[in-house]
Amino acid sequence: MAVTVSTGAMVVDTASSPFAQLRPVGLDAVTIDDAFWAPRLRTNREATLPSQYRLLWETGRIDNLLRAAGTRDGEFQGRYFNDSDVYKWLEAASWSVAGGHDAEPELHAMIDETISAVEAAQRPDGYLNSYFARERADQRWTDFDLHEMYCAGHLFQAAVAHHRATRSTRLLDVATRFADHIDVTFGPEVGKRIGTDGHPEIEMALVELARETGERRYIDLARFLVDVRGHGVLGDAYGRFGKEYHQDHRPFRDLDEIVGHAVRAVYLNAGVADLYAETGEPALLETLHRLWQSMTTRKMYVSGGIGSRYEGESFGEDYELPNALAYTETCAAIGSMMWNWRMLSIEAEARYADLLELTLYNAMLPGVSLDGETYFYQNPLADEGSHRRQAWFGTACCPPNVARTLASLPGYVYSASDEGIWIHLYAAGTARIPLDDRVVALRQETRYPWDGEITIEVDGEGDFSLMLRIPAWCEEGATLTVNDEPLPESLVPGRYAEVRREWRPGDTVRLSLPMPVRRVESHPYVEENTGRVALMRGPLLYCLEQIDNPAVAIRDIAVPDDVSFQADWRHDLLGGVVALIADARLAPPDDSWSDALYRAARSTPQAAGERVAITAIPYHAWANREPGAMRVWLRRGR
Amino acid sequence: MAVTVSTGAMVVDTASSPFAQLRPVGLDAVTIDDAFWAPRLRTNREATLPSQYRLLWETGRIDNLLRAAGTRDGEFQGRYFNDSDVYKWLEAASWSVAGGHDAEPELHAMIDETISAVEAAQRPDGYLNSYFARERADQRWTDFDLHEMYCAGHLFQAAVAHHRATRSTRLLDVATRFADHIDVTFGPEVGKRIGTDGHPEIEMALVELARETGERRYIDLARFLVDVRGHGVLGDAYGRFGKEYHQDHRPFRDLDEIVGHAVRAVYLNAGVADLYAETGEPALLETLHRLWQSMTTRKMYVSGGIGSRYEGESFGEDYELPNALAYTETCAAIGSMMWNWRMLSIEAEARYADLLELTLYNAMLPGVSLDGETYFYQNPLADEGSHRRQAWFGTACCPPNVARTLASLPGYVYSASDEGIWIHLYAAGTARIPLDDRVVALRQETRYPWDGEITIEVDGEGDFSLMLRIPAWCEEGATLTVNDEPLPESLVPGRYAEVRREWRPGDTVRLSLPMPVRRVESHPYVEENTGRVALMRGPLLYCLEQIDNPAVAIRDIAVPDDVSFQADWRHDLLGGVVALIADARLAPPDDSWSDALYRAARSTPQAAGERVAITAIPYHAWANREPGAMRVWLRRGR
Repeated sequence: MAVTVSTGAMVVDTASSPFAQLRPVGLDAVTIDDAFWAPRLRTNREATLPSQYRLLWETGRIDNLLRAAGTRDGEFQGRYFNDSDVYKWLEAASWSVAGGHDAEPELHAMIDETISAVEAAQRPDGYLNSYFARERADQRWTDFDLHEMYCAGHLFQAAVAHHRATRSTRLLDVATRFADHIDVTFGPEVGKRIGTDGHPEIEMALVELARETGERRYIDLARFLVDVRGHGVLGDAYGRFGKEYHQDHRPFRDLDEIVGHAVRAVYLNAGVADLYAETGEPALLETLHRLWQSMTTRKMYVSGGIGSRYEGESFGEDYELPNALAYTETCAAIGSMMWNWRMLSIEAEARYADLLELTLYNAMLPGVSLDGETYFYQNPLADEGSHRRQAWFGTACCPPNVARTLASLPGYVYSASDEGIWIHLYAAGTARIPLDDRVVALRQETRYPWDGEITIEVDGEGDFSLMLRIPAWCEEGATLTVNDEPLPESLVPGRYAEVRREWRPGDTVRLSLPMPVRRVESHPYVEENTGRVALMRGPLLYCLEQIDNPAVAIRDIAVPDDVSFQADWRHDLLGGVVALIADARLAPPDDSWSDALYRAARSTPQAAGERVAITAIPYHAWANREPGAMRVWLRRGR
Repeated sequence: MAVTVSTGAMVVDTASSPFAQLRPVGLDAVTIDDAFWAPRLRTNREATLPSQYRLLWETGRIDNLLRAAGTRDGEFQGRYFNDSDVYKWLEAASWSVAGGHDAEPELHAMIDETISAVEAAQRPDGYLNSYFARERADQRWTDFDLHEMYCAGHLFQAAVAHHRATRSTRLLDVATRFADHIDVTFGPEVGKRIGTDGHPEIEMALVELARETGERRYIDLARFLVDVRGHGVLGDAYGRFGKEYHQDHRPFRDLDEIVGHAVRAVYLNAGVADLYAETGEPALLETLHRLWQSMTTRKMYVSGGIGSRYEGESFGEDYELPNALAYTETCAAIGSMMWNWRMLSIEAEARYADLLELTLYNAMLPGVSLDGETYFYQNPLADEGSHRRQAWFGTACCPPNVARTLASLPGYVYSASDEGIWIHLYAAGTARIPLDDRVVALRQETRYPWDGEITIEVDGEGDFSLMLRIPAWCEEGATLTVNDEPLPESLVPGRYAEVRREWRPGDTVRLSLPMPVRRVESHPYVEENTGRVALMRGPLLYCLEQIDNPAVAIRDIAVPDDVSFQADWRHDLLGGVVALIADARLAPPDDSWSDALYRAARSTPQAAGERVAITAIPYHAWANREPGAMRVWLRRGR
């Protein structure tokens, strides 16, 4: 085993990356004990992970590995990329036992048994993929659409997580053997093969593996795998969706629009961001900026979700953002978070943390039910009651992806830098953050995201800055005090507020982020949202669900511009949420429509309808009760 | 060979069907010599059919048949349903040589050579499918998703057309041998198999084959193939799209909503309508009424196009009618025409002819380029310039489907009944219509669809009615005179006007259908069309294309309600069209949007924009020039 470099369970270890401004804080140094995330994280550990472990067995995913190891017979089960679900589960379980929650001996046992199966499945030359075992052993690396490097990447990420969480090198040894095998097989050198994977993922994993082992070859390999894209090495296997589908349409550094398969695109961008953090090549960062601009200003849902089209699971054209037919795969949201986290580490700009937060609450979190045992693959923004979470999928990428994201959440709250401590997310809990030669202890008290009052006790001495994100959504009224003294500088939404001082134990920072209900409209080119508004409060997107508004069809509800909303804490609703209530208007089609679908256009506007009391709930919590219609974008009406 | 019953090239021969009110008029008894359709039909004969014939060879479709015959080796080429394209081409070519256009000796030679290949490919037991030949010969009827009956149905339709057009029994003999083979293999009787095809099509073909041969067994077989649906015989092969996909989700007579794969749905409905015409079973007609209502009032584009979703090529939810992402397969439009033609024959109600006309001009016709050599599979109602017609497709169902529709068009213009003659479509030309013991000759003079003035000379004697369709789109002002005397009854849009009299040679009927430009709005539940209007004139839907409006981005164009449109004949445009011109308004996003995709909603309405002259063209003619944006639904604006 190579040298171990990292010293904590860091989600992405940019601590020594020369081109990253922020250093992560290991998730084992952070606790979240709030009323919002803590129950979700507990459910993730106690319900999601055990149930997914059972499903890995029941669906033959572990059996596939044992079959590859020769200890079990029968056919390969499921799809060719099914190993990756095992690895994502291992990553999730590893993060879960890292945070001091190792009161779960059963989870440790599950991890160990799973790693044994993975170890056994590895070939003597380091190759590891249960699909290309036995009768298909001679078909290795013959079809780059069959996700061999993709699965390898997930193995590497799991191995890095397991090592950071437990200091065990069992899985890391498996990973480095496979990485070395890939490294001697592929590359620009004479005698190696030119190729890359149809599904990006391995790039970020290789960079992390390099960080964990100190082995720079893996960074060179990651760069090679990026560089060969756009030169047709993947052929036309996905001809129907074009080369954009697997991000092979143009050389990466020439890209200026985010296109094709959404998960592939953001996974690739995350890997390139990792590469930039190590190499500092300006063209990579410039390209990432162009792609981020393309995504955030033309191709992103108000939820932060991405990937508009079912066809090819892809980004669509600019402003193509259908609501009921939104694809918005949960994995794409997670990939966006991964990318944004890396951009944040590189540039320390709040816009990335703003988007990370938006996506976390409103695009990733809807992907899992409150009970932690059913999942969305697609996350539409409108539905008539047919779209429901499922316990598993034939292509089960999303469930363990949600699990690893939740398990690693404490690692996204803080960063450190030469200037001091950065607070990206607000959630009650504690952290112990290494800063130069000392450790600063923090305690956040807040009811966020239900309330924007945040108290931070700083237990550390010396001269350093505390950087607090002022979310862009907090357009006015944010205030900040230190020991009840207001900060002299005004706070700028979408920037970090810097509190620099000589800290003393017991210093208390109070941040107040007012959370009025916000009506949001979308760019006029988003044709499906013409004449509609969405409701937001704090970082949360809201929606109307039929069950809360039983007297009327929710598509008949219109929200006049002068209606005021009340934020109402409802402890009995969906585990406790702030609901939004208002007197809106009922605006059903007039009788003259009868059964017509089209008619001669009339100029007379419809009269204002009857008043109707409405209740909106956070979008992330929809579809947790009986099926019914749901809408994010509401008619403005009169 | 069985007795031949039909006596003309009738597209659907309900002449002796006990439960059909209308009898068709053979397309060989009708000429169209107008400026709209005649050039299209000539292009179809002279460009489309020869180019498709070449493509049948170049893509291995004929070779597949020769391979099955044993006269050629090599692999089967293309997809398992590729025989059907050969049959659809044969049907199209047959109709084309029926109408007295047999100045095309080359077309006759192509037909004969193709039939020779089909004959040779037939197995001694009557089975015929080139995919299930040689190495797959033992896999016949093992997977009902592999279109064996679907291909058979297209063979039967081609054979019936060829027989009606040429009186040759060559292809009909092949068809009856295969039909007999299917009939001894499948059915409710002991010793036969229970099954039906994943893709309906054979049902209508069997009924037509029965009409052509007098063989009632084929009707019984068609009924059996309908009756077994909804009982799970097709299994879950298309599990992802559900049993709706292949119309196996519920017994046919229980259906009340049109769902699943659009082409499958309307082909099945057409077959059931044929079955009803022969059997008169009330439950069949009642179900067809429910499905027609479901489609036309909740699931149909303003173009008449159907099938909203790329996913599963399916109908979506009620009111799910996205524009840029509309699937609206050309074949689905054609299937809708086929279904509506049969409903019209059964019930003689103008609503079916209205929809046939709408679909013909605006949903089928956009499927082929003006030069007759490129095709749309999908027909979106909005585009940014990327959707272009193609010369062929891997799944090439649409091109020969368009060809057979155009080739048979003269057969859709008229019907006869005990009351007299029905005129469904308006197009300059002639017809010789058998009525009791005499033949009535008609001549239509009109510039329809550019102009609603129609003159009909009736050359026939005796007491009968002339039934003229008053289109539902002609909401007011229609007038009708006979020898310059106004008809005493008022004309009702969406009904046939009956002119009953003792006719004398030279009698002249003049129908005037005013064609003001109509602004159409869609039901408020069609969310993508909120605040938008579509433009129609006569039977034609219009659109804006970028090339005609070069100074502005067409999505920035708004059409205030008080703007008036001029209909402008443009002989130099797109082969001659009536364009619509108006002074509209420019309404681009205000500068404050900057690069934002979402912002706090503002209440102040945007000021009226600059005036901008706009030109709209018929939707069917879009994408025949350089690529650019297109919109059917235009912002109403101020």
